[in-house]
Amino acid sequence: MKVGVPAETDPEETRVGVVPPVAADLVDEGFEVCIESGAGERSDWRDTAYRDAGCEILEDRNAVFEESDVIARVNGLGAAEDDDSHLYRDGQIVVGLLGPYDLEGELEALAERGLTAFALELMPRISRAQSMDALSSMSSIGGYKAAIVAAERLPKMFPLQMTAAGTVQPADVFVIGAGVAGLQAIATAERLGASVRAYDIRLEVREEVQSLGADFVELDLETEGSGDEEGYAREMDEEFYRQQRKALTRVVGESDVVITTAAIPGKPAPELVTEEMVDGMDRGSVIVDLSAATGGNCELTVPDETIHHGGVEIFGPTNLPASVPHHASQLYANNIRNFLQNAFEGDGQTLDFDDEIVDSTLLTHDGTVRWTHPAREGEPD
Amino acid sequence: MKVGVPAETDPEETRVGVVPPVAADLVDEGFEVCIESGAGERSDWRDTAYRDAGCEILEDRNAVFEESDVIARVNGLGAAEDDDSHLYRDGQIVVGLLGPYDLEGELEALAERGLTAFALELMPRISRAQSMDALSSMSSIGGYKAAIVAAERLPKMFPLQMTAAGTVQPADVFVIGAGVAGLQAIATAERLGASVRAYDIRLEVREEVQSLGADFVELDLETEGSGDEEGYAREMDEEFYRQQRKALTRVVGESDVVITTAAIPGKPAPELVTEEMVDGMDRGSVIVDLSAATGGNCELTVPDETIHHGGVEIFGPTNLPASVPHHASQLYANNIRNFLQNAFEGDGQTLDFDDEIVDSTLLTHDGTVRWTHPAREGEPD
Repeated sequence: MKVGVPAETDPEETRVGVVPPVAADLVDEGFEVCIESGAGERSDWRDTAYRDAGCEILEDRNAVFEESDVIARVNGLGAAEDDDSHLYRDGQIVVGLLGPYDLEGELEALAERGLTAFALELMPRISRAQSMDALSSMSSIGGYKAAIVAAERLPKMFPLQMTAAGTVQPADVFVIGAGVAGLQAIATAERLGASVRAYDIRLEVREEVQSLGADFVELDLETEGSGDEEGYAREMDEEFYRQQRKALTRVVGESDVVITTAAIPGKPAPELVTEEMVDGMDRGSVIVDLSAATGGNCELTVPDETIHHGGVEIFGPTNLPASVPHHASQLYANNIRNFLQNAFEGDGQTLDFDDEIVDSTLLTHDGTVRWTHPAREGEPD
Repeated sequence: MKVGVPAETDPEETRVGVVPPVAADLVDEGFEVCIESGAGERSDWRDTAYRDAGCEILEDRNAVFEESDVIARVNGLGAAEDDDSHLYRDGQIVVGLLGPYDLEGELEALAERGLTAFALELMPRISRAQSMDALSSMSSIGGYKAAIVAAERLPKMFPLQMTAAGTVQPADVFVIGAGVAGLQAIATAERLGASVRAYDIRLEVREEVQSLGADFVELDLETEGSGDEEGYAREMDEEFYRQQRKALTRVVGESDVVITTAAIPGKPAPELVTEEMVDGMDRGSVIVDLSAATGGNCELTVPDETIHHGGVEIFGPTNLPASVPHHASQLYANNIRNFLQNAFEGDGQTLDFDDEIVDSTLLTHDGTVRWTHPAREGEPD
């Protein structure tokens, strides 16, 4: 069973699907591994390190696709502008962040070509799958980096300073959404000494927020039971969001930094921070919108751009983990390794389709599309 | 006694000499304060806030110079490309970071015009002067921001991560020079969870470094008594630096981030990090050279540019405090206020030239140059 690692095609993508230590693990377990020359360059993993780990280095990109049984990559289908899905062979297995929610006809086309495609975004939220959950590992890095980016851009310092030249109050940081990314943003801002508040519609995360040292913002409009069985926030009705935005105006207006992380899988991000709220912020304040890729939590967010509005800076990065490529690749490759270890039966050759993780993440197999976009479930064919 | 605050002329300078809360203090103590309209704009202090603090807002820049007895500013002489020293009036007092070590004939010219000029860089290192020590307050901000900038640029995370996707080791940060800036860089990197080592030729700072949680790098070449009576590092002979660089090679090569802060007042910064050392660093590593303004501690540093050398990024900011302009202006203005409060005798009108702080910082007065560049002491006129 040969695992092939092509370089990523998205010019903004700096990560790589497999790093040398993970390649060594895979080789130890009986996989062969080949990698496109230079694939790890942008994340500071060099060809020589892959070679030392027992990988074959291939100069020819097409050869990676031709020789491999499994393609392990970061972005796979639809994510890159220069989509290279035509390179996949009949019967090939591909594992990656394949962007299933954005796929339309591509899914049928790939099924017809016999591709067995696994989208790591569809990882079930069960404890056995945590070590393969790339959304979670990448969100953690994104949350960390959001706090760093905010500190880098803010015209104030994060920590309290008591100096001979006087006292400087800590920056007020407000994190909206206390999932994996939000909790890391909270932890990082707290470490830097900011005064941190956080909000989530799921009241059950309150204790976790408080255990990090942050204050949990209690709104009159809170609702219980808004997390679904997989721990994601459910989509609420529009009236609820309108009321919630009104209440959030106060807290946003008191904050130097707002980091938003609210996302709903497969649906547009809820708009939580309105232009009116931004108007209420002090000049020099900074918003980092981690939900920019799915439309943004802030009304003014433009993906991958920095918007200036009344002295407030609104930054909507769509791929912050790619700005920490060395460690992001390391954790992502661990996810890939753990997934492959689990997916194959004892013989190391046969996929175990009875496994819940294999089944949940499977997009296409054996000529058919195995996954339906939740928004399209029940629609007539 | 009227204090005038012009906008800064250096296009890279975002700070302002007096902020509204400090203006209010000065007004309370019987000073009048006028400010050029928009002078606080880039540090997010608005004209309306100055007006509320009791300042006069002047649209005409020249009027600030015409009406004021004291000009309080950040950069004053020689620091700005568009030097506006021709605006000073005969008998006027000016206080700021006047860049005395870079002044040549300007000093004589200003003395002839009767200017009483105070350079805050010359603040004596006595405890009474700490609250006026702008180099210290700005170095503290610079040290903080150096660690933030390094975290923003590094392709790794600073903290140890123990996650379901595996463990990520903390970044290795090496801070060279443990003065005010170095200690803040150490503290900030430690807060972010990095593994921090620090070096200073002054062994007496070892305990302070260790109290922040960092390891002090012990070199065979350490020397005692290399701090002078004012706490600055003395210039050592070239042979010493050559030996020291050789020994530092090992530690630099083991580091993901190197932050250098070694400076000697009025002299070029010692070259501590050579090209050879940079060659020994891993790809993706980051150097932030806080001594770039005086030539840099790294051989490859180019002031205010980012140099890429063998996969290592070398950034040499000359004015990091200006990237935190709101708080930097606040602390700087406190320094200015404390200086003015001390400089004037009880009547609030007469400068107390017998005061050690007034005397130490005085560049020109009463038609004569009162300060001699240490490097030119003893030279024939």
